Amino acid sequence: MRYLTAGESHGPGLTVIVEGVPAGLDVDIDAINRELKKRQSGYGRGRRMQIESDRVEVKAGIRHGRTTGAPISFWIENKDHTHWRNVMQAEPIADDLEVKRRVVRPRPGHADLVGGLKYDHRDLRDVLERSSARETAARVAVGALSKQLLAAVDMTVFSYVNVIGGVEAEQTDADSKEALMAMVEASPVRTFDADAAEKMMRLIDEAKAAGDSLGGVVTTEVHGVIPGLGSYVQYDRKLDAKIAQAVMSVNAIKGVAFGDGFDMAFRPGSEVMDPIAYDDTGYTRMSNHLGGFEGGMTTGMPIVCKAVMKPIPTLYKPLPSVDIETKEAFLAQIERSDACAVPAASLVVEAVVAFELARELCETFGHDTVERIQSRVATYREEIRTW
Amino acid sequence: MRYLTAGESHGPGLTVIVEGVPAGLDVDIDAINRELKKRQSGYGRGRRMQIESDRVEVKAGIRHGRTTGAPISFWIENKDHTHWRNVMQAEPIADDLEVKRRVVRPRPGHADLVGGLKYDHRDLRDVLERSSARETAARVAVGALSKQLLAAVDMTVFSYVNVIGGVEAEQTDADSKEALMAMVEASPVRTFDADAAEKMMRLIDEAKAAGDSLGGVVTTEVHGVIPGLGSYVQYDRKLDAKIAQAVMSVNAIKGVAFGDGFDMAFRPGSEVMDPIAYDDTGYTRMSNHLGGFEGGMTTGMPIVCKAVMKPIPTLYKPLPSVDIETKEAFLAQIERSDACAVPAASLVVEAVVAFELARELCETFGHDTVERIQSRVATYREEIRTW
Amino acid sequence: MRYLTAGESHGPGLTVIVEGVPAGLDVDIDAINRELKKRQSGYGRGRRMQIESDRVEVKAGIRHGRTTGAPISFWIENKDHTHWRNVMQAEPIADDLEVKRRVVRPRPGHADLVGGLKYDHRDLRDVLERSSARETAARVAVGALSKQLLAAVDMTVFSYVNVIGGVEAEQTDADSKEALMAMVEASPVRTFDADAAEKMMRLIDEAKAAGDSLGGVVTTEVHGVIPGLGSYVQYDRKLDAKIAQAVMSVNAIKGVAFGDGFDMAFRPGSEVMDPIAYDDTGYTRMSNHLGGFEGGMTTGMPIVCKAVMKPIPTLYKPLPSVDIETKEAFLAQIERSDACAVPAASLVVEAVVAFELARELCETFGHDTVERIQSRVATYREEIRTW
Amino acid sequence: MRYLTAGESHGPGLTVIVEGVPAGLDVDIDAINRELKKRQSGYGRGRRMQIESDRVEVKAGIRHGRTTGAPISFWIENKDHTHWRNVMQAEPIADDLEVKRRVVRPRPGHADLVGGLKYDHRDLRDVLERSSARETAARVAVGALSKQLLAAVDMTVFSYVNVIGGVEAEQTDADSKEALMAMVEASPVRTFDADAAEKMMRLIDEAKAAGDSLGGVVTTEVHGVIPGLGSYVQYDRKLDAKIAQAVMSVNAIKGVAFGDGFDMAFRPGSEVMDPIAYDDTGYTRMSNHLGGFEGGMTTGMPIVCKAVMKPIPTLYKPLPSVDIETKEAFLAQIERSDACAVPAASLVVEAVVAFELARELCETFGHDTVERIQSRVATYREEIRTW
Repeated sequence: MRYLTAGESHGPGLTVIVEGVPAGLDVDIDAINRELKKRQSGYGRGRRMQIESDRVEVKAGIRHGRTTGAPISFWIENKDHTHWRNVMQAEPIADDLEVKRRVVRPRPGHADLVGGLKYDHRDLRDVLERSSARETAARVAVGALSKQLLAAVDMTVFSYVNVIGGVEAEQTDADSKEALMAMVEASPVRTFDADAAEKMMRLIDEAKAAGDSLGGVVTTEVHGVIPGLGSYVQYDRKLDAKIAQAVMSVNAIKGVAFGDGFDMAFRPGSEVMDPIAYDDTGYTRMSNHLGGFEGGMTTGMPIVCKAVMKPIPTLYKPLPSVDIETKEAFLAQIERSDACAVPAASLVVEAVVAFELARELCETFGHDTVERIQSRVATYREEIRTW
Repeated sequence: MRYLTAGESHGPGLTVIVEGVPAGLDVDIDAINRELKKRQSGYGRGRRMQIESDRVEVKAGIRHGRTTGAPISFWIENKDHTHWRNVMQAEPIADDLEVKRRVVRPRPGHADLVGGLKYDHRDLRDVLERSSARETAARVAVGALSKQLLAAVDMTVFSYVNVIGGVEAEQTDADSKEALMAMVEASPVRTFDADAAEKMMRLIDEAKAAGDSLGGVVTTEVHGVIPGLGSYVQYDRKLDAKIAQAVMSVNAIKGVAFGDGFDMAFRPGSEVMDPIAYDDTGYTRMSNHLGGFEGGMTTGMPIVCKAVMKPIPTLYKPLPSVDIETKEAFLAQIERSDACAVPAASLVVEAVVAFELARELCETFGHDTVERIQSRVATYREEIRTW
Repeated sequence: MRYLTAGESHGPGLTVIVEGVPAGLDVDIDAINRELKKRQSGYGRGRRMQIESDRVEVKAGIRHGRTTGAPISFWIENKDHTHWRNVMQAEPIADDLEVKRRVVRPRPGHADLVGGLKYDHRDLRDVLERSSARETAARVAVGALSKQLLAAVDMTVFSYVNVIGGVEAEQTDADSKEALMAMVEASPVRTFDADAAEKMMRLIDEAKAAGDSLGGVVTTEVHGVIPGLGSYVQYDRKLDAKIAQAVMSVNAIKGVAFGDGFDMAFRPGSEVMDPIAYDDTGYTRMSNHLGGFEGGMTTGMPIVCKAVMKPIPTLYKPLPSVDIETKEAFLAQIERSDACAVPAASLVVEAVVAFELARELCETFGHDTVERIQSRVATYREEIRTW
Repeated sequence: MRYLTAGESHGPGLTVIVEGVPAGLDVDIDAINRELKKRQSGYGRGRRMQIESDRVEVKAGIRHGRTTGAPISFWIENKDHTHWRNVMQAEPIADDLEVKRRVVRPRPGHADLVGGLKYDHRDLRDVLERSSARETAARVAVGALSKQLLAAVDMTVFSYVNVIGGVEAEQTDADSKEALMAMVEASPVRTFDADAAEKMMRLIDEAKAAGDSLGGVVTTEVHGVIPGLGSYVQYDRKLDAKIAQAVMSVNAIKGVAFGDGFDMAFRPGSEVMDPIAYDDTGYTRMSNHLGGFEGGMTTGMPIVCKAVMKPIPTLYKPLPSVDIETKEAFLAQIERSDACAVPAASLVVEAVVAFELARELCETFGHDTVERIQSRVATYREEIRTW
C-alpha cells in the first residue's frame, strides 16, 4: 500500500490515490465521512471548519461496495472554492495582484518563507495553499479506509488527547477500553478525563480571547495487534520508525514517542521493563512500558504512540516578520483563527498510524485479497499461540 | 544516497554498502575510524567495547583517497569472531546444541521473542545476533562519511548527552559552539555540563553496582544548514519526518523531537514562535523553538533533534521471562553488561541524522560530483540571501 | 518525479497525481489535450474512440499557468460513464447480475482470467475495467507534461510507427527531423513512408473485414539529449533499463530494444560500434547503433527506442476460452473492435519515455525550480563541451 | 527482497547484500559457486576467465546452512587483485600516473567517456573499473540464491543461447525439458542444437582471429510458475516490465522481449493468441505466444524471456576514438579479449530474472519464513485449480 495526495487549501478539492489495497474489502464510505466530520469538529476550531462538510467521492477502485484491488481514488471537494476560482485557477490570468490575492508577508512557523525560497515563489500563496493543514483531510480518509482493513483482522485504532496547553488528562471514569473510547468521542476536546476537559476548554477560550494558541499531546492506541509486524533486520524496516516518520509528517507535530517515551530517561531500567509471561493465549507482557514494540516489531501488546503538536502558528497576536518585497519588518498577518487544533490532530495522527499498520499487514501477509490475508493471519495467530 | 548493512554480532564482521555518494569527495578514512572508536568508548560500557577496536576496510568505491561515484563498501571486522566460528558458521553443522550456543530464553525488551515468533527461530540466537546494537557500528561509519560530504558545503553535525538517568545537563562554561563541542568530546558521558557529568557518572556506577541500567536523552545539532531542504508538498518528503524515522530506527530509541519538542504542549503559541528577521546575511529567525524546521523544510537555523534512549534491557538484575521450550517462567539471563549506552547512542543518532541530510543534499543539488554540488549550493545560497 | 493513476474504463474518469514536478514550469494545457486527442485518433480504431474526447481538468498543482511544485492532479472524465452508472457505482447494489453486466468469460490475451484468479473476482468486470488500455490516457497526459519540462532544456521526444502487420516503413521523403515529424503527425498510421502507410491502411482494412487484428513496431526518439543521464554504478540506476520497464508496462507491448536492437545478434562487433569524435560542440559519435546509451547512460546521441506491440487480443474472430462458472469451453466474446492500435501505442510509449527522462533530469539537476534546472544544465553542457 | 552490489573489476573483490530473504531457506553454497563457475566458462572467453575461480564467502545472514531472515552478505574475492593493489588502493597515492595506470582513451561502446563526463573523472579507470561486466558475478550469486528460493515452491529457471553472430539454434534432439537443459549445460556455447553449436564455435574462432566480436540472443525460461504474480493495477507493478528492467540492466543487453516478441509485428492476431483451456490441473493455455504473461501477470505458462546482447565492444580491431587529454583522434586500445560473451550473458540474464521472480513471490506470499510461503502457495495453487 502507498498513497499520494494532491490539492490546495482553496483549490477545487483534494485528490488522493491509494494503491495496493487488497481486493474484497467491504468499504463503509459513511464511516470514512464520519471521520472527516470528526476532523472538522473539536473545541477551538475557527469558523471555516463549520462551513465545510467534507465528504469523499469515490472515483475509482471501489465497485458495488467492495474494493477491487485497483487503486482507489477519493475526491474531497473544497466547499468554499467558489469564492476562490480566479485566485486559484490553473489557467493563466492577467497579472492583477489583487485578483491573485498575492501574499508577500510570510507567517513565522509556517512553510511560507522557506517554501518561497525553495520554489522561488514571489507570491507566497503558491506555498501556503499546499502547505496548509487542509491536506490532512485526505490523510484522514486514507486512515479511515486503513482502519477498515485492520478491522478485518481484529485490529482497532483509536486516539485521544492527553494534554492541551499544559493541562493533562490524568484519570478517567471509564472502566473499559470501549467506555473510554465512547467518552473520548463524546468530548469536544477528545479526552477521557472530564475535569481536565473542562479546564482545557476554559484555557482554549482564554487563548482565543488573548489571541493566542495552544498545543498539546495526543495518543494513538492500537489494540488486537498481530505480533511480529515490522522487522529488526534492516534499519528501514522497523515499524515503529516508519510510524515515527508518518506521525512527524503531520502538520505541526514536533515530537513522537512510544510507550513511556521521554520519561524513560528519568527512570532506571528495572522500572521500565516489560516481563514476558505465557498462558493459553500465548506469550504476553506483564506491562507495556515499551508501547507495543521490541526491536522495531509489534509485540502484540497495544501500540501506544504519543505525539506533540505545537501551538498553531497563526496568531491574532501579531508576530514580527519581514515583507519579502520591501524587506521591511512588519507584524504578521492573520490568515486563520483556530486557537487549538489538538483534537483534530489526534485524528490525523490516528489516521497515519492506521495506514502504516495496514501497509505492514499487507507486506507481511500479502495484498491480493482480504480473505487470504484473514486466513493467513488466523493460521499465524494460532501458530504463535503455542509456539 | 541509500545504504544497506549486513552482519551479525558474533559473525565475521559487518558489511555496509553506501550507494549514490557523489564522485570527487576526499575521504578521510581515519576520521571515520575515530568515530567508530568514539562509539565504543563512553562511561558505562561493558568489557566487550574495550576488546574490539573497530576499523573500516574500504572494499569498493574509494580510490586514491576520493570517491568515484561507485557504491562504497565498508567491511568492519568483528575482532572476537575467532571464538565464535562454529557457533556462527554459514555451513551446516552437526546438531549439537551446545556448540550452537542455542538460546531458548528470550530477554524482555529485546527482539528475541518476537523475532523468534516472526521468523520461526527456535534458536533465539538467530534473532539476537542481528538485532544486537553491534550493527550500529556500520551506521556510524555511514554517518561519518556523510559528515564529510556535508562539510564540503559547510554543514556540521554534532551531538551530546542531555540527560542520563534523570540527571540533566543544564549549564555550561563553554562560550562558543566550538568550545562546547570540545567539552563534549572530552567528557566520558559526552555532555557539556561538568557538574551534571559528575553526577551522571556516579549514577552509572550505582546502577552498575545495583545491576540496573540507565537511559537518557541525546541531542544532535546541525549548523550551517542550507535552507529549503525537504519539502511540504507531499507527506513523505518532509525532512524532519525522514529524520524521525532514521532516529527512531536506532536501537533502544523510543522517542524523537525537534526544538522544544514535548514542552510545546505546555506553553502558549506566543512563547514558542520564531519571528522572522532579515539582514545582509539573508532571512533568519530570532529564536529557534522549532529546531530548524518549518513545513518539513530546513529554515537555515540549526537543526536541534532530541531523542530518548530507554535503559538497555540487559540486566544483571534478573527479569521474569518464559523458556520457549518448556514454557516455564524463569529469570532472564545476562548476555551483556553495559549499564548505560547513552553516550554511544548520541553518536549513532548523530550519524543517522547526518546521513539523512547528506541524502537530501544530493536530492536537491544532484549527486554526480561534489564540485557541482558545491557550486550549485553557493549559487543558491547567494540567490536566497537577497531574495 | 513519480506518479500514480487510478480509474476504470467505464468508471467516472481517470485520476492521475504527478509528484515532484519542479515549480515554475509554464504549462500548456491545450498541448496536453492535443496529445490526448492524438491517442484517440489513428487508422483502425473502433467507434468508442470517436465518441470520447479526452481533456484533462487540472485539480491541483498548477496555478495561473505554471507549476507550483505541489503535486499535480489531472482528472480525465470518461464521457460514456453516464450509461454505466449502476454498473460501476461505488455504493452497494442489489445482486442483479444483469445490472452488473457481470463477465464470466475470460478473453485470451487479456488480464481477465489471471486477474480473476489473483483477486478472486468471480465477476471479471472487476478485472477488465482496470486492466483496459483506457488507463493509457492518463499516461499520455503525464508524458505530455513531461515533454514540456524536457523542452525547457531543449530535449524533444517524438514517436512514429515502423511496422504494422508486417509492412515496414523503410524510406521517407522527409529531409529533416522536422519534416519527418510533420509527415508522421499527418499520417493516419503515424509513419514517415507514404507507400508503406498506404499498404498498412489496406492491411488494416483487410484485417478488420476478416475479424482479425494487427500488431506492429513503434519507435520513440529523443533529440537534444543531455549526456550522462542515468548511471552504470548500480544495476537499478541504468536509464535504458528504467525506460525498458516503462515501455514494457504499456498495454500489449511485448518487447523493447535500443538502437539496432535484436539485429545486433546478427552482425559482428566491427559493424555495430559507434566511434567517438570530437569537435567544437564536444564529443559525439559517428554513428548511433547503440541508440543513445552506453553503460546505462545517455551519450548525447538521439535515444532510439523500439517497442513491439502484439495484435490486440479482442477479436471478431472468436477464440476458445472457458466459462469460469460452468467450466465449459466457449468461443470468446467481442468486447471491442479496434483492428489495430499501433499508432496510438506509439504515443503512449513516447509518453512513458518522456516521463522517465524528465524524472532522470530532476534527479540529476534538482527538482525545485525549472529555472535552476535550466541554469545547471547550461553550465553542465558547457563544462562537458570542452572537457 | 532487494540487493545492492559494490566492487570494482580490479579492486579487492565484490560485495553484495541481499535483503529480505525469508528465514529457513536451506542454502546450497556449492550450487551458488557452480553458477559462478559457469559464468566464467563458455566458448570464446578470454584468458582472465580461466585465472579467476569465483567463490562466494558468506559474511552474514546464513547460519548453519540456512537463512535467518537477516540480510545476506556475499564476498567474492578478485583473484588478480594482488597485481593491482597500488592501482586500486583506497588510500591516497603519489600522483604517479603510471602507477595509477591512468586511462585517458575512452573505448567506444563502453561507459568510459560518458562516465568520465558525468563524474568528472579525468582518469577513466575510475569509470571502467565499476562499469565492467565483472560486477555480473555478484548478480549471478544473487540469482543462484533466488533460484533456491524459487525451487522451494517448485519454480525452476534456466537459460540457453539461441543465436550467436547470426547463427540460430533451431532444432534439438532433446525430447524433454530435462534433456534439453542437460544438453545446454554440456554445450560450450550453451545451446540445444548440436549443429548450430558447431557453427557458432567456428564463427567465434573466426571472429577471434579477425579481431572481431559477436553478439547473440539468449532465452530464459521459468517453469512451474505460480499464476498471478505481478499485477495490472498500476503500471509499475507489472512483472514483465520489472523483468524487462532487470534484463536490460545487464551489461551489453540491448533488447528484451517475451514470447514471440518482435515477431508479433509480423503476424495477425489470429495466429498469436493463446486460447484458454481447463482440466483437472486448472486453467491452462493451448499455446504460449505471450511467453507466460497477460496483463503484467504470470499466467502459469512457462515464462519465455529473450534478450539480445550486442557484440562486446572491446576489440582487437581498433576503433576511432578521442584522447580526452589531447583531444586527438586515435584507434581505441585493447583492454580485454573475449570474442563472445553470449553464453555467460545467458547466465546473468537467468540470474536477474530469478531474482525478480523471487522478489515477487515474497511480495505476494510474505517474506518471513520459507515454510509459511510454501504453505500459502500450496493453498493458493489448490484454490485456483478449481476456481
